[in-house]
Amino acid sequence: MADISSRVDSDRVLADLNALRAIGAYKTGVHKPTFSEPHLRSLAWLVQQLPEAGLAGEIDGIGNVLGTSTKSGPKLLAGSHLESQNHAGWLDGPLGVVYALEAARVINPDPNIEGVVEVAAWCDEEGHFGHFLGSRSYAGGVTEADIDAARDRNNGRSMRDALRDAGLAGRVRVRCEQGRHIGYLEAHIEQGETLESSGLKIGIVTSIVGIWQYRITFTGEQNHAGTTRMAIRRDAGLALARFCVDVDNRFPAACGPRTVWTTGRITLDPGAPSIIPGAAEMLFQIRDDDPAVIARLEELLHSMAAEVNAQGRCAVAVERIRTGTPARMDGSFQQAIEAASAAFADGKSLRMPSGAGHDAQILSTVMPAGMLFVPSIGGISHHWTENTADADIVTGAEVFVDACRRLLAQ
Amino acid sequence: MADISSRVDSDRVLADLNALRAIGAYKTGVHKPTFSEPHLRSLAWLVQQLPEAGLAGEIDGIGNVLGTSTKSGPKLLAGSHLESQNHAGWLDGPLGVVYALEAARVINPDPNIEGVVEVAAWCDEEGHFGHFLGSRSYAGGVTEADIDAARDRNNGRSMRDALRDAGLAGRVRVRCEQGRHIGYLEAHIEQGETLESSGLKIGIVTSIVGIWQYRITFTGEQNHAGTTRMAIRRDAGLALARFCVDVDNRFPAACGPRTVWTTGRITLDPGAPSIIPGAAEMLFQIRDDDPAVIARLEELLHSMAAEVNAQGRCAVAVERIRTGTPARMDGSFQQAIEAASAAFADGKSLRMPSGAGHDAQILSTVMPAGMLFVPSIGGISHHWTENTADADIVTGAEVFVDACRRLLAQ
Repeated sequence: MADISSRVDSDRVLADLNALRAIGAYKTGVHKPTFSEPHLRSLAWLVQQLPEAGLAGEIDGIGNVLGTSTKSGPKLLAGSHLESQNHAGWLDGPLGVVYALEAARVINPDPNIEGVVEVAAWCDEEGHFGHFLGSRSYAGGVTEADIDAARDRNNGRSMRDALRDAGLAGRVRVRCEQGRHIGYLEAHIEQGETLESSGLKIGIVTSIVGIWQYRITFTGEQNHAGTTRMAIRRDAGLALARFCVDVDNRFPAACGPRTVWTTGRITLDPGAPSIIPGAAEMLFQIRDDDPAVIARLEELLHSMAAEVNAQGRCAVAVERIRTGTPARMDGSFQQAIEAASAAFADGKSLRMPSGAGHDAQILSTVMPAGMLFVPSIGGISHHWTENTADADIVTGAEVFVDACRRLLAQ
Repeated sequence: MADISSRVDSDRVLADLNALRAIGAYKTGVHKPTFSEPHLRSLAWLVQQLPEAGLAGEIDGIGNVLGTSTKSGPKLLAGSHLESQNHAGWLDGPLGVVYALEAARVINPDPNIEGVVEVAAWCDEEGHFGHFLGSRSYAGGVTEADIDAARDRNNGRSMRDALRDAGLAGRVRVRCEQGRHIGYLEAHIEQGETLESSGLKIGIVTSIVGIWQYRITFTGEQNHAGTTRMAIRRDAGLALARFCVDVDNRFPAACGPRTVWTTGRITLDPGAPSIIPGAAEMLFQIRDDDPAVIARLEELLHSMAAEVNAQGRCAVAVERIRTGTPARMDGSFQQAIEAASAAFADGKSLRMPSGAGHDAQILSTVMPAGMLFVPSIGGISHHWTENTADADIVTGAEVFVDACRRLLAQ
């Protein structure tokens, strides 16, 4: 093992990550929405690095970068994404891309290793324009009509305009070649505090949880906030607040050990200080890797809504707007990561599900897939203060490259 | 009394109200934000009607219409407003203006009556640009700097731009002339269901409640909605929902008999479905005519906030952003309306406070003021379905004109 370890260039890995952090820097993080200038510059940066790893590639017609090799032997695909959430962290995405690049730089020129690592940066994993449009395009799940319909949720710019402005209009979208790869490996920061709080270095992802999303709407009666007595009000905002609290009180008895639920957005209509809200809406999300748990919680949600409707003051409707599918990570990938952790991280690893969505869940529909996590300081994620200790970044790179070697050797 | 009654032209009153309803019609209501084209057209319509009532007037430098007379004798000022809330009712404002116009048309040419009714339409009672800017300008409470700072809350257009676009830039703002008027009388729809549910026709306003407004902000920790376990979350949105429910549970034991409170707007930050809100804000309002009740409720609000802060999960701050002053209506105005109700509404009147704010509260700071209400069907207000039966509109007009006559005769 020692000879592989010696060939991971930890300074190079950290320098690459900092180079990407400097493009679109925001405080100690980055602000690189999909197809923003710093995102496009980051993609161009990656394309420039590929030849050093024996790969050729360019940005395709949906903003994916694919670095491919003509070398014979088994091929492992590895990567992540380069755009960020708004004003978010420097490692969410770039870590997995730089690990993949480092694995390619270490493994591809090595005459003693049969096979290659190919590198991918999937566009829009962070969902500025949709759900995993880049990796879904590669897996064959995005139509031209999907692209026609996609718009930037921040500013309404259409994806067609964004592609045209980026000079990508009319380029071919690279599709997955059946049988080309033995599988896909992705590294990511944990985005939680399980590893950190347990003193562990590597998370071996067993599954990626599904996301179920609901629009819950309340209808009361809009009226004057000064003249309408409390006793006769039908305040949709208050009904919503009571529902949120009720969810928080009743879900724990019905959920699974790792279920999470979130009300991320609340809108009162009309939203004026002197008007009793006649309508209110909440966006509500549940994540779990067990569809049976979701079914139980969804039933609870509907029965809670029925109780509110039976009271008759306000009406509530629960509409599922997104249905999740948990993705199982491949067993042999988990074993390879575990063995590499034993070799390079003192065995300080833990098998765990991923609460966040990742491109690996899309790739798992077309090839075996695996993921590894490195610790996140304080578990902070989707915020510019997100960070991971340099030593943990380096350990992760060593485990990642060794896992690639093991997978190619199988 | 019969000769006065015969001179209120009920068809003319209803025709005028319907003419104003046709300007900026929205379903069965109207959409006439301040300084919108239909609002300006409504002001121009009023200016055209003034000569028939023996009055001269134009739109002043803040959008008020003042119809004045050179006739000798006591002068009573009467009016209301012509702009509407967004997509709101047809009578909220116009009713009081048309009653005032009708009183002027009936009384001013009458050689047997000494004195005149002067007519006002106050600009922006509905607060698109601020709080009672029109009537406050007339009362001397608006500076040029206030106008510089005022912006349309719907679209951000500055009041200066709106005045310029309306051709009103540079016009003089008419100010109240000390001693000119014996007082101010305003009619309005009730905007509640007290009169309707009691089978009454006239509300005699005793006081206009004060409005106290608060910005209540919650600070938690923004984090990933998939990877952050429920147990360690600091969800500012959930803290807000719990606070709303807590207010609703605890205020009834501390409030007065007619206190009302409303959470009209809720904002979660960043407001994305996959992010735990790190911050949340609610706009909260309390109305009462007794400052001692407000003091008690404000203390409760602060102690509830202290409890949340003591729990340590999220921080909450309560900031008072508007301080109300209840306005007492003049006793002799109340008596005049009561006597007129006895004569023209079978005495079906009730003394009651106004839960809504009105220009009369501003005018009451510079002259005696009074208000009367007519019933609202279903108590609906600030919504396009707002309405009052034609018969009740006519009864209200007869009571209003007779009250004007009685006040001028005093």
